Amino acid sequence: MSDRLIYLPLGGSGEIGMNAYVYGYGPQDKERLILVDIGVAFSDMDTSPGVDLIFADIRWLEENKDRLEAVFITHGHEDHIGAVGHYWAKLGVPVYARAFTANLARHKLADRGQPEEVVRTVSAWPEVTEAGPFNVGFLPVSHSIPESAALVIDSPAGRVIHSGDFKLDETPLVGEPFDPELWKDVSKDGVKALICDSTNVFSPHEGRSEASVGPEIEALVAAAPHMVVATTFASNVARVKTLAEAGQRAGRSICLMGRAMRRMIEAAITTGVLSDFPKVVSPEDAATIPRENLMLLVTGSQGEHRAASAQLARGKYNGITLKDGDLFLFSSKTIPGNEKGVIRIINQFSEMGVDVVDDSSGKYHVSGHANRPDLQRLHDIVNPQMVIPNHGEHRHLREHAKLANESGRASIVAVNGTMLDLTGNEPKVTGYVETGRVYLDGAVQIGALDGIVRDRLRMAMNGHVTVNVLLDEDDEPLGDAWVELKGLPEIGRSDAPLVDVLEEDLTQFLGRAGEKTLRDDDKIEGELRRIARNTARDEIGKKPEVTIIVSRLS
Amino acid sequence: MSDRLIYLPLGGSGEIGMNAYVYGYGPQDKERLILVDIGVAFSDMDTSPGVDLIFADIRWLEENKDRLEAVFITHGHEDHIGAVGHYWAKLGVPVYARAFTANLARHKLADRGQPEEVVRTVSAWPEVTEAGPFNVGFLPVSHSIPESAALVIDSPAGRVIHSGDFKLDETPLVGEPFDPELWKDVSKDGVKALICDSTNVFSPHEGRSEASVGPEIEALVAAAPHMVVATTFASNVARVKTLAEAGQRAGRSICLMGRAMRRMIEAAITTGVLSDFPKVVSPEDAATIPRENLMLLVTGSQGEHRAASAQLARGKYNGITLKDGDLFLFSSKTIPGNEKGVIRIINQFSEMGVDVVDDSSGKYHVSGHANRPDLQRLHDIVNPQMVIPNHGEHRHLREHAKLANESGRASIVAVNGTMLDLTGNEPKVTGYVETGRVYLDGAVQIGALDGIVRDRLRMAMNGHVTVNVLLDEDDEPLGDAWVELKGLPEIGRSDAPLVDVLEEDLTQFLGRAGEKTLRDDDKIEGELRRIARNTARDEIGKKPEVTIIVSRLS
Repeated sequence: MSDRLIYLPLGGSGEIGMNAYVYGYGPQDKERLILVDIGVAFSDMDTSPGVDLIFADIRWLEENKDRLEAVFITHGHEDHIGAVGHYWAKLGVPVYARAFTANLARHKLADRGQPEEVVRTVSAWPEVTEAGPFNVGFLPVSHSIPESAALVIDSPAGRVIHSGDFKLDETPLVGEPFDPELWKDVSKDGVKALICDSTNVFSPHEGRSEASVGPEIEALVAAAPHMVVATTFASNVARVKTLAEAGQRAGRSICLMGRAMRRMIEAAITTGVLSDFPKVVSPEDAATIPRENLMLLVTGSQGEHRAASAQLARGKYNGITLKDGDLFLFSSKTIPGNEKGVIRIINQFSEMGVDVVDDSSGKYHVSGHANRPDLQRLHDIVNPQMVIPNHGEHRHLREHAKLANESGRASIVAVNGTMLDLTGNEPKVTGYVETGRVYLDGAVQIGALDGIVRDRLRMAMNGHVTVNVLLDEDDEPLGDAWVELKGLPEIGRSDAPLVDVLEEDLTQFLGRAGEKTLRDDDKIEGELRRIARNTARDEIGKKPEVTIIVSRLS
Repeated sequence: MSDRLIYLPLGGSGEIGMNAYVYGYGPQDKERLILVDIGVAFSDMDTSPGVDLIFADIRWLEENKDRLEAVFITHGHEDHIGAVGHYWAKLGVPVYARAFTANLARHKLADRGQPEEVVRTVSAWPEVTEAGPFNVGFLPVSHSIPESAALVIDSPAGRVIHSGDFKLDETPLVGEPFDPELWKDVSKDGVKALICDSTNVFSPHEGRSEASVGPEIEALVAAAPHMVVATTFASNVARVKTLAEAGQRAGRSICLMGRAMRRMIEAAITTGVLSDFPKVVSPEDAATIPRENLMLLVTGSQGEHRAASAQLARGKYNGITLKDGDLFLFSSKTIPGNEKGVIRIINQFSEMGVDVVDDSSGKYHVSGHANRPDLQRLHDIVNPQMVIPNHGEHRHLREHAKLANESGRASIVAVNGTMLDLTGNEPKVTGYVETGRVYLDGAVQIGALDGIVRDRLRMAMNGHVTVNVLLDEDDEPLGDAWVELKGLPEIGRSDAPLVDVLEEDLTQFLGRAGEKTLRDDDKIEGELRRIARNTARDEIGKKPEVTIIVSRLS
């Protein structure tokens, strides 16, 4: 059997988040494998209440661990690096990344008690790392975090370029500009496949450079009469720098607030990515500086409840309180699903008299992803045989595949679990692998379909009733049924306490139940549950979740 | 004591939704009252899981029911009319509305078993209705539902205009165009206060007419090769008509799907608001028509799980299944908070190969609310002494007040519960009334702060543990503690079933607990709860909600 080159997204294709892509080369089912990125997604109340983080289900990779050579991480965003600490023990192979990303990865491993030394720092292209049949190089590309890289993945089947998250920014302020000549050179001998970021395929206009927001922010900060607070993603080091410089030019002291903000800037300075960052003052010192001479750069651009911005909106953070006439700038875009949290903060600031400026004008934020014409431009530069869209929901992947087809390039929508054979002239589906989501729930990893979160959602919708029944040695009811409610109204339609009505109906049932029923745990539980739900429906118009406890003295 | 004119928002000021505004005239605390609008807001998983509808808390009005003269409803949107069936019995006064709105109100009263005849149909200005010291007229204004009206509220203290929801559309297709001459005429003798819709105060450009979307939609539908499906708010009768006419011109049969869509169009035809609506076919007949000759107009523009659009996205509705190459048009805007539901549908359609067109181009939808320059224009036409912003979150009200101030008009941010005295030359806060939200939860109305929904949210985040303990006649434990879990992982850190670990820890406690503890229900419950939560935290990293049942044989 001849060798083949395969591609298998385990996460990130069919959603934006929890990226995890497998490449393999070798004889069928014996391909040697590498993993590109190992990220997380975030929970929400609608689908995953109480869940701390969401990972791709990598069971297939665990089962084929002996074939895995290495993990390569394109950049330091949580949706690409976030699971490295949680999953490394299951993979047990070296993790390769550029210096800044490697610094973050080591922190993540240390946080989970894993060995930091498994992270190997590599330099940018033309350096390459051998991993089984692969040679992998980190090709610099601009994005909203320093040292983002596309991967040049060479195997005997040819060259594949995995774009990673990118935009075509020739003046990114921090990190390497997009270098079309370098990309042309890398692509000149033919590229088999471009696996390509699809996030902004619906944005019709050419993307704007990070450099375009600086002057706008400077003008805004310079004109502000009182305190200025700005938020953005902490990992957007270039933006944090732009914000800090705008503050500095306006004669303000800069204070970083929020753990992620401080950690990220530290990592950027430590690894040499960031230089000439304005001097910062501590939160303690900030509290003593006149408000009009101060600018805070804070975490929480997505309205996260515990982040600095939300705490400031609720009243106080690190001893600082915002006041009438202060300015709060969201130098960020709200990710779909986070709108309500962000709007809540804006209204809280409004109540304080704080003027909030967001990105609706388009002046204070630019995206880190390539828009439709930029994608087209990259396709044309790389000129691959095939374009495989990744990093997108189904609608993004489909649109991106159409875009590629329009220029006569082969393409396909391959969602998580779809294994593609890239050996030929066009991608071929060669199988499907079971994938899905794993929830980190407190300290435990659970499957998204285990029913655990489903039960929580049901309790949230329907409330919960506990029914307790005592049976004596002869299986005769001992006393009345006992009911406890949680998350349910106390009084129903009959104007009596719901607990009383339920206990009466359940006790009546016990009185008339036959011996056979009373002796049978399943039967009695089933009946009690049915009665509890029906009585509740009659009384309060909803059927609660029910836990039945039958205690037998026998 | 002299008479005064008061204004008191009970809902709708400090949020978009559940509008309810009180006006009063007379001696202090004896003012005769009218209520303008009585709407609902909608629940979400983040704050109100399982809640069916949200109403303004109108306790103050119930307590002052003897002073209430009438309810006036400006238009038929749910956030203005939705609570009329639920609340009418608490108010017991006539409900005045124009014909189309009255038709909807009667349905709502009938749905709740209330008398339909309390709804009185009134004609537009110059007809006025006397209600105690007030004369109230319905001044036609354009909006995204037929027969919207501003209210002209005359009292001995002068004329007040309550804008209701509006836009300045001189070609609205259905319903009366905005008539600046009429508004000038009504305002010519001086207007004391304009209480004014703030929804779109952050939209910087002049609003566009409903007439502008027709040609775009026609071009889109005419070019579609297969089936076309379009969704919009059912109550946007003008849009539904535009969509239907576009379909008709393209030679397609029109089919309305979803109860709200059919009910709304029926009401519009019955009340004479809508004429020349294209002939429609039934869903049964639609299934027999060639796909390329069919256009469906469906409910569910906000991604509502049970609406027609979501059901089509999941597979089938009324016997119809969408296919590769069909077109689905969102002729609507996604309301903040609904993004994820809408995106889910778009991705499901993408998987089917259905091409989805939404409003991102700005071509297929226009807002029903006045933008900032339109607000300015209305201020200038009415030229009131004061502008009181309503229908908005705090940020909207504040911005709208600033806008009014810029033209030298008195203004104030008055959120729900703020009673304003409008008698003088500028608004004065004259007191605060307790307000809030009432949840319709199944069949029961509960207070938002009753703790019921809070308990449900906690169960959703933390899961639930039931602990059952049996004590004999001497208060000695009888057997082991018994634990049931809901919404929690089965296995924790010690690799044993969580139930077993909990039962062991709780049983150990029972073994060592003193007589005094075992005899005291509060004490034993407190200890069991503490142990259950701590053991769970150690095992699974989260502290669940706990229900304790101590059964005593004594």
